[in-house]
Amino acid sequence: MDEVQTVSLAGGEKEITVIPHGRNTRRPSTFHVTPVSEEEHELNNRVPSRPTPELKFELDDEGDTLSNHNSITALLSSKFRDIQKRLKQYGIESPRFRKRLVSKWESLNYDVCENVLYIKEQEKYKSKKWVTLRWLSKWLVMFSIGIMTALLAATIHFVVEKLAHLKFDLIKHYFDDCAKNNCLYQPALMWMGINLVITVAGAALVTFLQPMAAGSGIPYIKSYLNGVKIPGLLTFRAFVAKTLGVVMSILGGLACGKEGPMAHSGSIIAAGLGRGRINFCNGKSISFYSAFRNDHEIRDFMAGGAASGVSSAFGAPIGGTLFSLEEAASFWNQDLTWRVFFSSMVACFATNFLISAINGDPTKLTDPGLVRFNAFKFDLKFDLIEIPVFIFMAVIGGLSGALFVVMNYKLTVFRKRYLNKNWIKIIEAGLVAMVSAAVAFGLMVGINDCTDKAPFDSHAVTAAVYCTDKKHNSLSTLFLTTPEGCLKALLHDPFESHGPVSLVAFVLIFFLLGVWTYGLSVSSGVFIPSLAIGAAWGRLVGIGVAHLMPENPNLGVNSSLIKQLDVGKFALIGAACQLGGILRTTISLTVIIVECTDDISFGLPIMIVLMISKWVGDFITTGLYDMNVEVMGIPTLPFECPPLCDDLRASDVMSHPLATFKTKEKVENIYRMLKEETFCGFPVIEDDPMAPGKGKLKGLILRNQLLVLLKKKIFCPEGQVPPRNITIKDFRDFYPVYLKVSEIDLSDEEKSYVMDLKPYYNPSPYTVEQKFSLPRVFNLFRGLGLRHLIVTDEKNMPMGMVTRKDLAKFRVGSKRGLVKIEQLKIEDK
Amino acid sequence: MDEVQTVSLAGGEKEITVIPHGRNTRRPSTFHVTPVSEEEHELNNRVPSRPTPELKFELDDEGDTLSNHNSITALLSSKFRDIQKRLKQYGIESPRFRKRLVSKWESLNYDVCENVLYIKEQEKYKSKKWVTLRWLSKWLVMFSIGIMTALLAATIHFVVEKLAHLKFDLIKHYFDDCAKNNCLYQPALMWMGINLVITVAGAALVTFLQPMAAGSGIPYIKSYLNGVKIPGLLTFRAFVAKTLGVVMSILGGLACGKEGPMAHSGSIIAAGLGRGRINFCNGKSISFYSAFRNDHEIRDFMAGGAASGVSSAFGAPIGGTLFSLEEAASFWNQDLTWRVFFSSMVACFATNFLISAINGDPTKLTDPGLVRFNAFKFDLKFDLIEIPVFIFMAVIGGLSGALFVVMNYKLTVFRKRYLNKNWIKIIEAGLVAMVSAAVAFGLMVGINDCTDKAPFDSHAVTAAVYCTDKKHNSLSTLFLTTPEGCLKALLHDPFESHGPVSLVAFVLIFFLLGVWTYGLSVSSGVFIPSLAIGAAWGRLVGIGVAHLMPENPNLGVNSSLIKQLDVGKFALIGAACQLGGILRTTISLTVIIVECTDDISFGLPIMIVLMISKWVGDFITTGLYDMNVEVMGIPTLPFECPPLCDDLRASDVMSHPLATFKTKEKVENIYRMLKEETFCGFPVIEDDPMAPGKGKLKGLILRNQLLVLLKKKIFCPEGQVPPRNITIKDFRDFYPVYLKVSEIDLSDEEKSYVMDLKPYYNPSPYTVEQKFSLPRVFNLFRGLGLRHLIVTDEKNMPMGMVTRKDLAKFRVGSKRGLVKIEQLKIEDK
Repeated sequence: MDEVQTVSLAGGEKEITVIPHGRNTRRPSTFHVTPVSEEEHELNNRVPSRPTPELKFELDDEGDTLSNHNSITALLSSKFRDIQKRLKQYGIESPRFRKRLVSKWESLNYDVCENVLYIKEQEKYKSKKWVTLRWLSKWLVMFSIGIMTALLAATIHFVVEKLAHLKFDLIKHYFDDCAKNNCLYQPALMWMGINLVITVAGAALVTFLQPMAAGSGIPYIKSYLNGVKIPGLLTFRAFVAKTLGVVMSILGGLACGKEGPMAHSGSIIAAGLGRGRINFCNGKSISFYSAFRNDHEIRDFMAGGAASGVSSAFGAPIGGTLFSLEEAASFWNQDLTWRVFFSSMVACFATNFLISAINGDPTKLTDPGLVRFNAFKFDLKFDLIEIPVFIFMAVIGGLSGALFVVMNYKLTVFRKRYLNKNWIKIIEAGLVAMVSAAVAFGLMVGINDCTDKAPFDSHAVTAAVYCTDKKHNSLSTLFLTTPEGCLKALLHDPFESHGPVSLVAFVLIFFLLGVWTYGLSVSSGVFIPSLAIGAAWGRLVGIGVAHLMPENPNLGVNSSLIKQLDVGKFALIGAACQLGGILRTTISLTVIIVECTDDISFGLPIMIVLMISKWVGDFITTGLYDMNVEVMGIPTLPFECPPLCDDLRASDVMSHPLATFKTKEKVENIYRMLKEETFCGFPVIEDDPMAPGKGKLKGLILRNQLLVLLKKKIFCPEGQVPPRNITIKDFRDFYPVYLKVSEIDLSDEEKSYVMDLKPYYNPSPYTVEQKFSLPRVFNLFRGLGLRHLIVTDEKNMPMGMVTRKDLAKFRVGSKRGLVKIEQLKIEDK
Repeated sequence: MDEVQTVSLAGGEKEITVIPHGRNTRRPSTFHVTPVSEEEHELNNRVPSRPTPELKFELDDEGDTLSNHNSITALLSSKFRDIQKRLKQYGIESPRFRKRLVSKWESLNYDVCENVLYIKEQEKYKSKKWVTLRWLSKWLVMFSIGIMTALLAATIHFVVEKLAHLKFDLIKHYFDDCAKNNCLYQPALMWMGINLVITVAGAALVTFLQPMAAGSGIPYIKSYLNGVKIPGLLTFRAFVAKTLGVVMSILGGLACGKEGPMAHSGSIIAAGLGRGRINFCNGKSISFYSAFRNDHEIRDFMAGGAASGVSSAFGAPIGGTLFSLEEAASFWNQDLTWRVFFSSMVACFATNFLISAINGDPTKLTDPGLVRFNAFKFDLKFDLIEIPVFIFMAVIGGLSGALFVVMNYKLTVFRKRYLNKNWIKIIEAGLVAMVSAAVAFGLMVGINDCTDKAPFDSHAVTAAVYCTDKKHNSLSTLFLTTPEGCLKALLHDPFESHGPVSLVAFVLIFFLLGVWTYGLSVSSGVFIPSLAIGAAWGRLVGIGVAHLMPENPNLGVNSSLIKQLDVGKFALIGAACQLGGILRTTISLTVIIVECTDDISFGLPIMIVLMISKWVGDFITTGLYDMNVEVMGIPTLPFECPPLCDDLRASDVMSHPLATFKTKEKVENIYRMLKEETFCGFPVIEDDPMAPGKGKLKGLILRNQLLVLLKKKIFCPEGQVPPRNITIKDFRDFYPVYLKVSEIDLSDEEKSYVMDLKPYYNPSPYTVEQKFSLPRVFNLFRGLGLRHLIVTDEKNMPMGMVTRKDLAKFRVGSKRGLVKIEQLKIEDK
């Protein structure tokens, strides 16, 4: 075992030397840790800049790989790095990207500011009437969230199905005609043309209206639930771009689904209903009520919205609830869980009702979600001997999933660097749409795999192309439909429908298209393409197993029936493996897939393969969503503090120096500070005439509060009684888009006035003493969902502030057999 | 709206007067709030007693009702109290019981003590090898927990099934013989005799070996996961009493199930494997490893054990995971969730394998749990028009569930007061067993409901009694079997099997027996009887609906088939309603039932009825488990602080005065303090020669640590270098049953020595300033799973300590239209 020597150097600096033990003679490695001394703090005090203390650990050169925060996978993936390095030696260089955090992402304010205004409002609730009313309205909002999400889901479903059917019917018509008359360029051009026009429109909508609506939105939603403020995510513009955009993306023939975007749309609905206000694109707004306008309540409602979205997308009320709750470790509580579950159940039920109604009979209630895998003709039963095959498939899924993530990651970095102009983004989307059509066309014509088996879906569009004798082109059932129809066909079509050659071609093409599509500036989900890729190669495995298996005449069943059953089962497992490999299913995704399958006894093999594909994938990279979060530099907090940080102290990680206010502060100072500093929270200190600027901590006031106070001119000349004509509702009226400093107009006279902060600041902010160890600071921050944590010295004087980024920047690395802590840089862009 | 006046009185006391507004002229109500002044604190300092500060709120007289902590249901249930009061006027008095907390329940120590020893140990883990090893061993332990729980489940299942079949075969034989020969007293006496002997043995086992093994254990497990230490709960004795006891209870013919106890058994297995040591009943023990011996790790493993237990009982891996996690809000993290899920999946899979093997073919894998509702012959489909019927059933379930809870509650209080001797407990158990047999006998003979429909279970014991023509007594299939067999029969037997008269009699009798059985001093679960009661009345509703429905010849199906299907479906819904009404299903129970049913599309009506039955039940009482927790006075913490506590401060709720130590303390002082005080944690303060006993806070040391230090004699004469021959492993060797003070022997010379506490105390305990509001103190405590929270004054000097009981004692009450906070008393017994 290695020996560790710690030498204290002058100035409090520590030198930690690790001397490797035994035969493998490595060089000793040395780290320097410089704690921030109090002198230094005082020296820098009130200088308007905010350097983060740099721990002098050596940073890894491999900062650009997708190493996982999880210590063990980080360790294991170092092997992968070695391979990557060797590739580099052969000149195979990839676009470089250094992991970092971007400073623009701020924390949500989940903590309640218990100032006088708040306590006064709480008094009101001491009557039965108010308690009941507040309780009922929370349930009512949750109910409305569920209903509206379901309405949206059903509408999108209806529009997409109808229009897609029109489009593909038209193309099929030309296809069949032209195969005879030798004019196949006509359907090809038409197909590409339709795709191009619709996709470009969708991309333009997203790009110009609200770029936050691009992609599935799930990485953003997860970050939001983790506690990060994502500007623009929950706006009306985003809603329009997301919902119209996803319809266009699917009609535009992109390899994407409408399920991921449902979670985002549901969240926007929830935020809107929670705030009780709609801000239209033209700057106008309608306001209904303001009681729930704070980050705390909105995040609760949003959990319900995200759950409803997932629930109506997959018919998975339990999975949806878990999806919302697992990110939000700091606020799981039974009451909230129950409300979220309620809203997600309402969404599921209403979706079921509406889609059944669209299909003809609202009382049938057989479609609880937009996508379901439940139409297997036979019971899904599995045999113990099939488990090894499933495990093998899970390994494939993990590996190909990791490949998907790596490729998409490289592409994302490339896009970030070179394709960052709006018009280029739109052109790229159009290009992908055209290529999708061209490739599909090429495969259909080139492979010409004919089958006479009727497809599972009796309404499916089938083109004959060159096939005769009432046969049809087998790939037409996969390409002349929405990606969801394609998935359904792969899961449920009869055994002989799709030949191995078609399937191999489909897997390759759809994999590449999937990689290329995810990350385009269009509203698109990655669930369905992942599942379709997996279902296709799962079907291949099924065909292989069916050919290897001896026919068993004793079973008393027609052997083609067995094959049919098997192939669907393998397609389902393949789909789960691929999804698990790409997204790294957590418990919520597992439940979602099990709920989609509608059969719990088959849940066990699904759980097993999801777990294994996650492990295999984690061995190589992080999941797709985590990769997204990482590239955007969003400071999400992990569930636990990285290990081995016990010797770091609060004073080592805090940002300092601080900008502070006195309890009675001159308006000029406040105005200047807000202008010059980027801080969002300011400690308020006692006004000690003996030692100015060195008073004891009294509370914490937020930038937003100060801006409202300035705007409402809650100040007066010194010595007079300060005005109190402001209520908590005035603050809420500005939520969530607060003012900018530039919107405040102050006369010179007003600037000389004094503001009394006492009624407005939070009198008991959470604080820690500077000697607190990092794991304890982390637990406090994460456990309570804090935004600001003030670090004080022994005399209760504020020394610095710990914010989300100060904690999120730490990650575990390993080097020469030693596990250690690294720091990410915080950058502006 | 009411007007509230707050008047500050002398000495900081506040008088809050509420003047009712409007026509309903009530008297104004006044509360007094006395904050603890600093003078008082200093006055009482170091006096060895621990008074809790009494807030002078008027306490409700209705303290003995089961009002829920949830504010709204508390409000609503006041109606119920009025009815109760009126009953009292008519002389119908019930045993009185005042809600209180019992002081013997202590908190778990979930926080890590970051002293020098710990940091030294952490150094070891900085190498890859150790990180990997620790990670792997955690997964390995979780795997073993799953496997061993499954083994236990399968063994219990096998033994119970075989022996129960033997017993009932014997009784049936005498029954059928004696019906002809007019000697029916023989089977009656034999039945009662067998029940008596086995049940008395089981009750004696539980009562004398480990009384903690009584009941289902789930209330204890939930409390443990909430953070309360339950002595004796996780011992080898409890394991023996629980597992053998449950076999005897079921063979003894009690109305109970073996599913609840599985969660407890799984937890004990987990705790044993986590600790790496078995303490046998004779005081000897075998120790394997000690790395995980702290409350933090053990609670993590126990979450896996409880999940595995639930999972192998119901074949519900997701439900089991949720069951473990929902109580433990302070430590949901993805890594742990994943491990818990893994262990619960392993348990489910292994149970499936083993039970399939017992049934003949291990590869069939059709029995993932001990109880399943999945054997419906037709697909479970529901129609929209059935929903109102289901909702009606949910209301019945909620009401009858509440009745069950109220009756059991009165019985529990009665038992606590009058039946508290061991021999009485055993006699009561024997009596219940005999009555169960006698009543079953009476019904079978008295009602004589004959049927010729073969029961669903082909191995079921059917007695003819007076029936002829190859018919059998329909009640015999319900009574001559285990409660699980009875449930299965009610769910799956054909439509005509059970007549309405039999069903009504069964419901009444089983309801009363269920109430009487739960709370006996035997190992028994309440799931199965609840489900059976519900299934029986659900079947009744189904029969009613079938008779009301017009026969539809257009359906093309045999109408008796429809009836068969319907009746099973209604029985299932009834079972869910009854369980929901009794236990107040949370999201985990919902998932468990859905997983048991094995059909997610039918999950939606199940979720709806569970939710409604919970609401209806909550309107009247708390759930059965919560009632248990309440009666035992266990201080579980709710998920959120009771509302309207914003004006209470940390100094109002803290326990004080404190017993503190200096960093270098005389052994005599330590020994005396440990003997005289009941505190479990002591703040360590700076040794300030200028103001003795008034130093700044340096850290926190636990009673257990001090006891180990004294035992190991880590002290020396003043001025010498203190001995350091103690490692963290020495502390772990004593875990979890630490020493008692009486086991420490110190000579007079040793008592004059000095102990240096610096290397052992936790240098950064969580603290709050005395002005902190109660909601924030609560969030901190709950969010971090704390045991001790030190309250300091502005100079960082410890003033008091907030522990679990100081927070758990607050609850919401309502009086005269005003919602207010009440305090529970903390009592010794």
